[in-house]
Amino acid sequence: MATRIRTHRKQRKNLLTSPGTLTYVGKSVDIKTQIKRIEYNASFYHEAIDSNLDVCLPRAESTDQPFVTWLNVTGIHEPDVIGQIGKMYQLHPLMLEDVMNTDQKPKVETYENGHLFVTLKMLHFDENSPTELWAEHISFVLGKNYLISFQEEQSGDVLTPVIDRLKASVGKTRRSGPDYLLYALVDVIVDNYFLVLENFGDQLDQLEDQVISGYQSQSLSELYSIKRELTFARRLIWPLRDMVAQLVRPDDPLVSKRVHPYMRDVNDHVMQIIESLDAYRELLASLVDVHLSTISNRMNQVMKTLTIFSAIFMPITFIVGVYGMNFDNIPELHTRNGYFITWGVMGMVTLGMLGYFRWKKWL
Amino acid sequence: MATRIRTHRKQRKNLLTSPGTLTYVGKSVDIKTQIKRIEYNASFYHEAIDSNLDVCLPRAESTDQPFVTWLNVTGIHEPDVIGQIGKMYQLHPLMLEDVMNTDQKPKVETYENGHLFVTLKMLHFDENSPTELWAEHISFVLGKNYLISFQEEQSGDVLTPVIDRLKASVGKTRRSGPDYLLYALVDVIVDNYFLVLENFGDQLDQLEDQVISGYQSQSLSELYSIKRELTFARRLIWPLRDMVAQLVRPDDPLVSKRVHPYMRDVNDHVMQIIESLDAYRELLASLVDVHLSTISNRMNQVMKTLTIFSAIFMPITFIVGVYGMNFDNIPELHTRNGYFITWGVMGMVTLGMLGYFRWKKWL
Amino acid sequence: MATRIRTHRKQRKNLLTSPGTLTYVGKSVDIKTQIKRIEYNASFYHEAIDSNLDVCLPRAESTDQPFVTWLNVTGIHEPDVIGQIGKMYQLHPLMLEDVMNTDQKPKVETYENGHLFVTLKMLHFDENSPTELWAEHISFVLGKNYLISFQEEQSGDVLTPVIDRLKASVGKTRRSGPDYLLYALVDVIVDNYFLVLENFGDQLDQLEDQVISGYQSQSLSELYSIKRELTFARRLIWPLRDMVAQLVRPDDPLVSKRVHPYMRDVNDHVMQIIESLDAYRELLASLVDVHLSTISNRMNQVMKTLTIFSAIFMPITFIVGVYGMNFDNIPELHTRNGYFITWGVMGMVTLGMLGYFRWKKWL
Amino acid sequence: MATRIRTHRKQRKNLLTSPGTLTYVGKSVDIKTQIKRIEYNASFYHEAIDSNLDVCLPRAESTDQPFVTWLNVTGIHEPDVIGQIGKMYQLHPLMLEDVMNTDQKPKVETYENGHLFVTLKMLHFDENSPTELWAEHISFVLGKNYLISFQEEQSGDVLTPVIDRLKASVGKTRRSGPDYLLYALVDVIVDNYFLVLENFGDQLDQLEDQVISGYQSQSLSELYSIKRELTFARRLIWPLRDMVAQLVRPDDPLVSKRVHPYMRDVNDHVMQIIESLDAYRELLASLVDVHLSTISNRMNQVMKTLTIFSAIFMPITFIVGVYGMNFDNIPELHTRNGYFITWGVMGMVTLGMLGYFRWKKWL
Amino acid sequence: MATRIRTHRKQRKNLLTSPGTLTYVGKSVDIKTQIKRIEYNASFYHEAIDSNLDVCLPRAESTDQPFVTWLNVTGIHEPDVIGQIGKMYQLHPLMLEDVMNTDQKPKVETYENGHLFVTLKMLHFDENSPTELWAEHISFVLGKNYLISFQEEQSGDVLTPVIDRLKASVGKTRRSGPDYLLYALVDVIVDNYFLVLENFGDQLDQLEDQVISGYQSQSLSELYSIKRELTFARRLIWPLRDMVAQLVRPDDPLVSKRVHPYMRDVNDHVMQIIESLDAYRELLASLVDVHLSTISNRMNQVMKTLTIFSAIFMPITFIVGVYGMNFDNIPELHTRNGYFITWGVMGMVTLGMLGYFRWKKWL
Repeated sequence: MATRIRTHRKQRKNLLTSPGTLTYVGKSVDIKTQIKRIEYNASFYHEAIDSNLDVCLPRAESTDQPFVTWLNVTGIHEPDVIGQIGKMYQLHPLMLEDVMNTDQKPKVETYENGHLFVTLKMLHFDENSPTELWAEHISFVLGKNYLISFQEEQSGDVLTPVIDRLKASVGKTRRSGPDYLLYALVDVIVDNYFLVLENFGDQLDQLEDQVISGYQSQSLSELYSIKRELTFARRLIWPLRDMVAQLVRPDDPLVSKRVHPYMRDVNDHVMQIIESLDAYRELLASLVDVHLSTISNRMNQVMKTLTIFSAIFMPITFIVGVYGMNFDNIPELHTRNGYFITWGVMGMVTLGMLGYFRWKKWL
Repeated sequence: MATRIRTHRKQRKNLLTSPGTLTYVGKSVDIKTQIKRIEYNASFYHEAIDSNLDVCLPRAESTDQPFVTWLNVTGIHEPDVIGQIGKMYQLHPLMLEDVMNTDQKPKVETYENGHLFVTLKMLHFDENSPTELWAEHISFVLGKNYLISFQEEQSGDVLTPVIDRLKASVGKTRRSGPDYLLYALVDVIVDNYFLVLENFGDQLDQLEDQVISGYQSQSLSELYSIKRELTFARRLIWPLRDMVAQLVRPDDPLVSKRVHPYMRDVNDHVMQIIESLDAYRELLASLVDVHLSTISNRMNQVMKTLTIFSAIFMPITFIVGVYGMNFDNIPELHTRNGYFITWGVMGMVTLGMLGYFRWKKWL
Repeated sequence: MATRIRTHRKQRKNLLTSPGTLTYVGKSVDIKTQIKRIEYNASFYHEAIDSNLDVCLPRAESTDQPFVTWLNVTGIHEPDVIGQIGKMYQLHPLMLEDVMNTDQKPKVETYENGHLFVTLKMLHFDENSPTELWAEHISFVLGKNYLISFQEEQSGDVLTPVIDRLKASVGKTRRSGPDYLLYALVDVIVDNYFLVLENFGDQLDQLEDQVISGYQSQSLSELYSIKRELTFARRLIWPLRDMVAQLVRPDDPLVSKRVHPYMRDVNDHVMQIIESLDAYRELLASLVDVHLSTISNRMNQVMKTLTIFSAIFMPITFIVGVYGMNFDNIPELHTRNGYFITWGVMGMVTLGMLGYFRWKKWL
Repeated sequence: MATRIRTHRKQRKNLLTSPGTLTYVGKSVDIKTQIKRIEYNASFYHEAIDSNLDVCLPRAESTDQPFVTWLNVTGIHEPDVIGQIGKMYQLHPLMLEDVMNTDQKPKVETYENGHLFVTLKMLHFDENSPTELWAEHISFVLGKNYLISFQEEQSGDVLTPVIDRLKASVGKTRRSGPDYLLYALVDVIVDNYFLVLENFGDQLDQLEDQVISGYQSQSLSELYSIKRELTFARRLIWPLRDMVAQLVRPDDPLVSKRVHPYMRDVNDHVMQIIESLDAYRELLASLVDVHLSTISNRMNQVMKTLTIFSAIFMPITFIVGVYGMNFDNIPELHTRNGYFITWGVMGMVTLGMLGYFRWKKWL
Repeated sequence: MATRIRTHRKQRKNLLTSPGTLTYVGKSVDIKTQIKRIEYNASFYHEAIDSNLDVCLPRAESTDQPFVTWLNVTGIHEPDVIGQIGKMYQLHPLMLEDVMNTDQKPKVETYENGHLFVTLKMLHFDENSPTELWAEHISFVLGKNYLISFQEEQSGDVLTPVIDRLKASVGKTRRSGPDYLLYALVDVIVDNYFLVLENFGDQLDQLEDQVISGYQSQSLSELYSIKRELTFARRLIWPLRDMVAQLVRPDDPLVSKRVHPYMRDVNDHVMQIIESLDAYRELLASLVDVHLSTISNRMNQVMKTLTIFSAIFMPITFIVGVYGMNFDNIPELHTRNGYFITWGVMGMVTLGMLGYFRWKKWL
């Protein structure tokens, strides 16, 4: 199961187990591990789906017609299965540990027995709760003429385009080796990040309008929640930065020179995504200022209203108080028009106050 | 069409298409791609404009009188046209993808078949809405004796100075190779950034005056909008930083040593622009503080007004209340001058309060 | 005794003592230093616990059956003991100083006489006061066929898993040299950091809920206290970053190539922890903004209440004041329904005000 | 004319002109370019001032008695003059462009024909308006046995010390080559930055006192204006950082090894200035916090005053209102001492309130 | 005299003087320069104090019994004295300038005639005004068999421990060369920084308690003053970072390999101090937030008090106003219990209000 990106994870593994012991740390899953074996070259394409481990057995290569084997393992929660595949292909125990550890950050590692190990994350927003970002752990092992991919769950929506292309026609992928296949798969994953980016952009646009147009008290907690998802998305994409430098090495026998420009292209996209995330982060920080300033402006408005009311009614309430006094000798009380003159005075005071506040631009 | 710099873009490409498939991602355009072929050397200058692709055909070079060919392609929305030009000059599919991808960030790439690829952005503020920054995607392919430029739309205002100089007289450009032409074009684009910079500077100056002199409630959203444009302008200029390092390599057969100081000069300007943008960014951040402090000062002013009114009228309203009481036995009521003495007392209270607040520097 | 992470420590050492003089700077302890000697190889395992220094004597190695010696010294407060062990194994005086200096930050150092020195911290939250982070100083000296560990107190809970594994079965550790043992011990310590991380995550989650849902005045001091613990935890983990680069050197005779991938794995975990701490730090900073904004919103609410009360009661109190005046000639006073009409007017004023504030969305 | 440091500059150059075209971009000046030719060695010193370009002609060097020629050109607004000097000494067109471009940031460049080009800024505060920082553009061209300096206007106050020293006695400068002269001139310019630094320090000290002692509403705009000048001063000094690395190269024929320690000394001063500017910047940021907090404290004070007044007068005004009611049956009204008892009660209420606020530490 | 760390210093030197001219820029002092000559090796120790410059004369070294000479010069305000010592030992003029320039930041420099120059600061808080940090300039010149130290004033409290150790017994220092002596002196200075650190820690702890427990209006200016001292302390310690890299060079004839681990140990301490200062800086920034939030909370409290008073007394004051009206026909006035019923109503209004505010958690 894909993992909800949260601020923390549960304990990485049982501390008592020795290093290299396989333990699955993601959500518990009931589904059985499913293995798809795809074999292809420019002239043929063969596909077999099974949950039986026999599919995985490395096949003797016929030298006259070399082909590429892609083993797509869906489900990384069964230590036994992963362990057995590991034995079949002589994978390093630490590599298997990383395959199963859904908390593992993206990285590229070369192992001495000639394996290139790539692990990264597939990201997508929850369809029902569109502000929740989910990550799915995916790992690739590149061998001389095979590629093994391990993914958390059947996320056909991300990798199927590549399978469809393989099936459909004899394109560049069919004519190339497993290194190009690795590129094609990483490329399709990175391309999916653009959708995540777009979602962030939409959320930010909405918030921007909301914050600038007026203020709603919950804006800042929304800002915070976008910020949190951004922070964690960045944390999962950032390590990809160095990945290509490790994939594009002049002397690497696994990744041929012809694939290098393609790998660099992926790096380009990764950099573009990271820079966009950083730009969003910066804008979010600015929006916080706009928001706080809007609150202050509102407060100013409230205070002005209060002050204007007070400044108008306090003086005239005082005046009526004066003529409510019971002194024996208050000459004004006995004049004929005292009452009306008083009204006049109060009217003038009120107008004076209103004029003063208009002059001060409070009205 | 030039692209409005926004916080996000739409999906980069159809995820189902294989890498290297040409898809235009900018705004949909109706105009036909237009191609201008310019040939020149120190002794002749020839220009041909056509939308027919035949103009593009590479011409056999006569060794006795070498000349430079500049192919200026306006319109990058037709995959067919771009694809055919790509075939004619054997351009790498990924290069063509970058030519058409208006989201591609600036970069320099060397391809193995001897092409140098440069892509960057032309920036200009919208003439009608002077706070909206627009970016136009432009790419250059430098070959042995030709330069191909791909631009989104006919933005004669940016590149024409170079064409005019070529036409007008036998200057340094006419006597030099396509590498100097590349420099001249990049230089004129970078020089245009100074206009953008100036516009930012003007906007900042206005805001500065506005924020410092007094406060208008919309200032911060204007600050934010400048900030956003700045952030994205910087994102589009920043990658140019490393560009020259890649253009000025001792062993590069395409860019001759004589052009190196000129390339370094461009780099200088780029650095100057980036540093100015950063300085603006820093000042914007400071202006936010000034703005927030101004709001607080205003609030203080409002509160003081309220407090002064209350402090003056509350006591005297209390006094008049006292003598409005109906106790049978209130001796003061029956004195001859009670009413007038009361006025005197109230006058003194008022003066006392005013004095107190003047002493406290609230008045 | 483990040391409470505080903002500062007491004077590092007596300034009069010459460099290399052993002084314990942690809390004063009464417990006697305890030494455990473990000897093992693939075929045997032997353990001896004693506080007698004789256990420490390096034993002559029989060439036919090499074994690993692990000397686990618990208690670093007795200069004599540490000094004598230092003499037995010819440890550099500065190394011993670092063993006893509980303020020493983590580092790796190679000494010329063939020792590799590693010092780091064990971290755990206080069980009773779950927001107090404690650090325990632990050092390792790796020799050709032995490993000496010095720890502040018997923290069986951290290192015992490794001892248990050694005892239990002939695993990878039993079949490997002291370099793998060093790895296993460092790994178990670093794995414990994940528990600390998780605790921080829990605290942050609680605060997040608390801050976003409503506001409690003490939130910010809690934020501050988490921030302080985070800052210091980071300071103690950060130096581990470079550690592996120093442990994984091609020409190092002490750490064999087979252990390199394991060391890199530890580095991976360290990087992951540091990145998580940084992400927490960033989120804490954002929470401060949310908190301040919540306070401002509350204030706004309070001010609105006050303003609404004032705006309603000031006008009507003025009206009743008017008819409390004692002018001889106030015609309204003598009308039949003046009193009731006045009530009507006041009711309308009140309703008008309420309508106004509802229109302004203050209600 | 020196240039006022502002947030932006006018368009760098006419975009139609080809690169290397000389255009002056500073303020328009009427003064004629003045040229001073100084020739010296350990045994003689000769000085000639003229506006005639003949002074500039490079003189044939007599091998038996080598001397240093210093050409000090004051006024960089006449393209013709600069161009002609450029031709005489075979200066690169881009170098001349940088000489005249007062917007050029400081840099060191080596040209292939053996010239070392150094351009930097002289900074000084306006004497009349002591918070306005002005920059003057100055460039040096170092040749084999000559140094050419181009400065915007006759700023004798900065360079004269060096001329005076040359005239006065046979010191180190007289005995050394043009590289030492270059050092001496750059040194005197950098030393002048210390005056600018001191001015900043004074302004900061004043603001500090002003902000901490009390608050004046204009403080923050002053803070902002210092910040702006600081930002731009830093931008003009910062590039000097790398300058020395370029001047102190082992294989440079123009700058001899003997001058290297002196150049490093200049670098030291530059670093010291930059660090001080950064420290000022940091303190300014902290002062903003102090200022905002002071405003808030003031507001608190104002609000407390208001609250205390309200809390005292509202209850007693209510009480007097009670006995102003006209009910037929209010027993208290007819008691003998009702009025005086009421005063007593009001006195106690007032005292109670005062006591409460004193207990709350508001008084 | 030690120098008070302030935001700026007076003009570095008279701009008219040529580089290398010795000028003292610190406070003017009356005390005469005092010179102490210490000679020692494993077998003897000799000490001579004089203000006569003859003590300084380098002595011919007897090859059979080499010894170390330490020249401790106290007082750097007399250019003559410094100049003469410089001549005796052939010190570079720029080195002497740095010895006397109390504004010189810490650095290590190697001069070609075989001198290693180290300059740094001794820091201590003023004993009377414990928040004022003072810096004393100290420089070391390491020669082949001698060390010259120049310090501003007799600060026996810092260096005496080393002298005492030299006198007291034949320790490591006595058996080693001047490079170890240099280490011992630098070490004792750096150890003193821990006292400064501790003082900062104490101040921060106090402020923390003060800020969190309640608020006192002067807290922020105290925060600011700690911040300022921290900023400048950091500026004086930071350059020490690179110092060791320059002292520990494989081919340096002056600093022997045996001293390298000791130098690295000093670096360790420097790094630890810098990291602690940075952690303090970060915590200070967080305390500012806590402080501002506390102020806002206080304000909230004040406003609530005001609002509660107003909300209670405004309605009941209105009610008593109603029955103070003089309408002829107010039926309630003539009822028997009108007055008491009115009291009842007012009591209920009051209770209602109190209940409302308790429900809103304002009470």
